[in-house]
Amino acid sequence: MSNFFELIKTDKNSRARVGKITTDHGEIPTPIFMPVGTLGTVKAVHQTDLINLDAKIILGNTYHLYLRPGMEVISEFGGLHNFMNWQRPILTDSGGYQVFSLSPLRKIDKDGVHFRSHIDGSKHYFTAESVVEIQRKIGSDIVMVLDECAPYPATREYISKSTKISIDWARKSRKHFLNSEPRWSYNQFQFGIGQGGVFVDFRKEYIEQMIEIGFDGYAIGGLSVGEPKDMMMEMVEVSTELLPKDKPRYLMGVGMPDDILNAIERGIDMFDCVIPTRNARNAQLFTTRGKINVRNLKYKFSKEPIDPGLDFYPSNYYTLGYLRHLFISEELLALSIASMQNIAFYLWLVRQARDKITDGTFVQWKNHLLDLWSNTK
Amino acid sequence: MSNFFELIKTDKNSRARVGKITTDHGEIPTPIFMPVGTLGTVKAVHQTDLINLDAKIILGNTYHLYLRPGMEVISEFGGLHNFMNWQRPILTDSGGYQVFSLSPLRKIDKDGVHFRSHIDGSKHYFTAESVVEIQRKIGSDIVMVLDECAPYPATREYISKSTKISIDWARKSRKHFLNSEPRWSYNQFQFGIGQGGVFVDFRKEYIEQMIEIGFDGYAIGGLSVGEPKDMMMEMVEVSTELLPKDKPRYLMGVGMPDDILNAIERGIDMFDCVIPTRNARNAQLFTTRGKINVRNLKYKFSKEPIDPGLDFYPSNYYTLGYLRHLFISEELLALSIASMQNIAFYLWLVRQARDKITDGTFVQWKNHLLDLWSNTK
Repeated sequence: MSNFFELIKTDKNSRARVGKITTDHGEIPTPIFMPVGTLGTVKAVHQTDLINLDAKIILGNTYHLYLRPGMEVISEFGGLHNFMNWQRPILTDSGGYQVFSLSPLRKIDKDGVHFRSHIDGSKHYFTAESVVEIQRKIGSDIVMVLDECAPYPATREYISKSTKISIDWARKSRKHFLNSEPRWSYNQFQFGIGQGGVFVDFRKEYIEQMIEIGFDGYAIGGLSVGEPKDMMMEMVEVSTELLPKDKPRYLMGVGMPDDILNAIERGIDMFDCVIPTRNARNAQLFTTRGKINVRNLKYKFSKEPIDPGLDFYPSNYYTLGYLRHLFISEELLALSIASMQNIAFYLWLVRQARDKITDGTFVQWKNHLLDLWSNTK
Repeated sequence: MSNFFELIKTDKNSRARVGKITTDHGEIPTPIFMPVGTLGTVKAVHQTDLINLDAKIILGNTYHLYLRPGMEVISEFGGLHNFMNWQRPILTDSGGYQVFSLSPLRKIDKDGVHFRSHIDGSKHYFTAESVVEIQRKIGSDIVMVLDECAPYPATREYISKSTKISIDWARKSRKHFLNSEPRWSYNQFQFGIGQGGVFVDFRKEYIEQMIEIGFDGYAIGGLSVGEPKDMMMEMVEVSTELLPKDKPRYLMGVGMPDDILNAIERGIDMFDCVIPTRNARNAQLFTTRGKINVRNLKYKFSKEPIDPGLDFYPSNYYTLGYLRHLFISEELLALSIASMQNIAFYLWLVRQARDKITDGTFVQWKNHLLDLWSNTK
């Protein structure tokens, strides 16, 4: 059996690295972006199209899937891969973030969190262990531990108390994971999550605790929640400085294309974010020549392809003028085309990053791209 | 140059016929169903997917395209085919039906109809000639004449007056079409439309007038507007009895799968209808084993493919249980999958009809299918 993670190359001029994650559902080259498939679907995009766009892994949301369709249905189908007929890797978050951001009522105790469904108000309880069990049923290739994603801003006192509970949950999660078996016929791997708000000492302490517990990979959580970008990057830096080189690092919920490049430079391997698909539904396109709001009148007669830099359907198939018409006319196809374009762009971005790290030109390329985009804003 | 229409075979036991329409954008085997692409998009379905589903021709709506994106945009792109990047045949209706069903205010005079846009209330005027001009700009392969689609029920007096005007418009339309050139670099063909409400004598008289004027094909309009189904089929019968055998016949806006089979039996070659796509968006599936409301609780755990009888994506790719989950969760992908399934079914239906007419078993097959469906309702 090959290693879960193989570090292939580290950049000479930065912490950027190229690697490979191996799961029973296939290999994932890193750095990688994971399109978000909250409810067992990447919104408005067919599974077959995700494959055509070169998606290597997608993310599912434990909280959402637990509520709908529920674990009875997912179990009956033999896990999420079969349910949605996506046979490439899946990572699921722990549900923690959604409990704290979506649930109208929630109460933490030492073992877990009581919450109400945002759909029907029904009562539920997540513990460190139950969240592992749920992800055993979902059958995600990569499982995340339950934690509290603290708000920003938060006091030192708040973060101190919050991180103590979350570290305790992480320990219980790992224990339960190691003492339980996969529900389906393939391996699962588990990541710990580093929290600590924007306090360097808490971040370091937390990460050290996670390393001591020992996970298959490490995530950095609780960022991109409103803090300044330089603060976010500082937290990333202090984390990747401590993290073991032979395990993948995942920056949760980040972000804009420039954030992704800056985080890759600081040694991050994995990303997920709703921005490409959510912004797509608001007519904001990410393209190799910069951001475009395709509702803009200036595209009314535009015969330019959506993104001439991407040799994929639909980027090279439709014009900006046609896509604008679809948005103005509120046609469903607009949402699908724009979502596919933005996913194609994010996947192009990480593919390019891998190539540039491999050939030793990552930092120059990154700077060039950031310049280009700042001129087209 | 090959004939526009070639009659290949007529059924021995009915008026059902197999034929072939040849346009500069490709051949269309008949009987055929045309998915409706109102605003230059078949709602929720990619152009590439329409090709994968074996769509041979789609329909566009002159009224809608005239208002959005407008003729300036369509002209700039060199016609609708290029605008939407659909290089197979397109038929456009004349806009008459939409003026009479959507416009909040309209006034007929002898030359045309004044109306207000249902979007912004702006004033417009369609004449027999201007509607030909608009369709020259759209560049549809098959162009329809302007007519009044009379409501149901309507008095003999109303129909008598309405048909006189529409026949006059048809004459002017044909004259203008024959005296004008295609705007783009390919041929266009023009169909007349038979009206006459549910009055046999008016239907016959109208059709005879259309034949006298002489078109490339003939449509039967003003049906499926609320009249009983046997009345609709009677009107179809009296029309196809008179229509020349060497021209295609198109039953506008019809209909349910059984209507299509019954009309094919009576000698109709072409169909369009919003039912497959509109009902899809309401979770109603048409499948080879009958109609399914996929929101039904009984499909919650169903691992059955959407339609095992159709060897197409997405019919054979997803389960009813997964599609139900997408509808219950109001996910956009549901609308796309269901629309594709229903289009796949309608195209399968006409493809099967062609095969059965060819091998002489059409009537038996039709009766078998109607029996099967009535048992699964």
